Amino acid sequence: MIKVYGDMQSGNWYKIKLLLNFLAIEHDWIHIDILAGETHTEEFMKMNPNTRIPVLDLGNGDHLAESNAILNYLADGSAFLPEDRLLRARVLQWQFFEQYSHEPYIATARFIRKYLGLPKEREQEYQAKQEGGHKALLIMEQVLAQSDFLVGDCLTIADISLYAYTHVSHEGGFELKSYPSIQRWINSIQQRPDYIGMNS
Amino acid sequence: MIKVYGDMQSGNWYKIKLLLNFLAIEHDWIHIDILAGETHTEEFMKMNPNTRIPVLDLGNGDHLAESNAILNYLADGSAFLPEDRLLRARVLQWQFFEQYSHEPYIATARFIRKYLGLPKEREQEYQAKQEGGHKALLIMEQVLAQSDFLVGDCLTIADISLYAYTHVSHEGGFELKSYPSIQRWINSIQQRPDYIGMNS
Repeated sequence: MIKVYGDMQSGNWYKIKLLLNFLAIEHDWIHIDILAGETHTEEFMKMNPNTRIPVLDLGNGDHLAESNAILNYLADGSAFLPEDRLLRARVLQWQFFEQYSHEPYIATARFIRKYLGLPKEREQEYQAKQEGGHKALLIMEQVLAQSDFLVGDCLTIADISLYAYTHVSHEGGFELKSYPSIQRWINSIQQRPDYIGMNS
Repeated sequence: MIKVYGDMQSGNWYKIKLLLNFLAIEHDWIHIDILAGETHTEEFMKMNPNTRIPVLDLGNGDHLAESNAILNYLADGSAFLPEDRLLRARVLQWQFFEQYSHEPYIATARFIRKYLGLPKEREQEYQAKQEGGHKALLIMEQVLAQSDFLVGDCLTIADISLYAYTHVSHEGGFELKSYPSIQRWINSIQQRPDYIGMNS
């Protein structure tokens, strides 16, 4: 059976959990406590020298890191990853957008506020994250105002990637009131059969 | 004919240029001056609302952003992108590593030093980038000490992605003396037929 190493509160792990549930793939889940330094043990660094979760253990000695690479691996051949060359690239466009222009603002602001309790010495950094986060949300809003999904006409791993941190963005100080299309998209994902919440 | 919008000094554009040359794909190249605000014009934002280069114009009204998504699109079906499911995901693992753990340190340090002339007010940020950059280089060094390429047994778009900013990392203050395997890998890429330099 495959194993996934992750942290329950991490959106990067939650992406995988949500897809595994939609695909009904059995798996073992191993909790890794980032703040306790568990990504820096010798054993963990053999799986991912970049000391980051999540990591997929394929059970045959192979490991795969980077949440979006794992999603592409798991979704290959399913309806969650289109076969069409341009649509596949479009999925990747959103996933690279997520890692470069969304996660570093929204997930980091959430981490500073929710995990660290918004300490004084990081308040300036937290505030500085707000502009970039809203820019990312506005780009999503514009696309979702025209379309039910980020790519093509069904739910793909592009939506799953972006959903993970967007649906908890209020925990990083981002109110979604002015993003009605994002709210509609969030609701539509939560109403799917086999949806599983971050904390369940 | 396809068009690519980019900046000649940008590694994110250079990745595309190098692959287009290896694949002998004819294209038009349009220079976009980031510092002059040319990624923020109404016309550019229609192609990429995220106001970033490079952008691929497929010539039929479709556009694709994010350098690594463009590489996957262009390399699909060629020897530069393996067909095997795990190897494809491994290519993505390196490309997400590049965008999250390599580019924000090495490319940003290079930008501050080379484009902006290392102004006093950004010196602290520049210094702070060094640790993360060396962590990324060390991870690459460990893999390249065991293998000629980052993924599988031939050059892929994983190598092309990582090569772009690594081969000019000295411009961001990263000396490659202590990374002999990276140096060997850089030389092997530069000796390939159809190699094209960043400034040529």
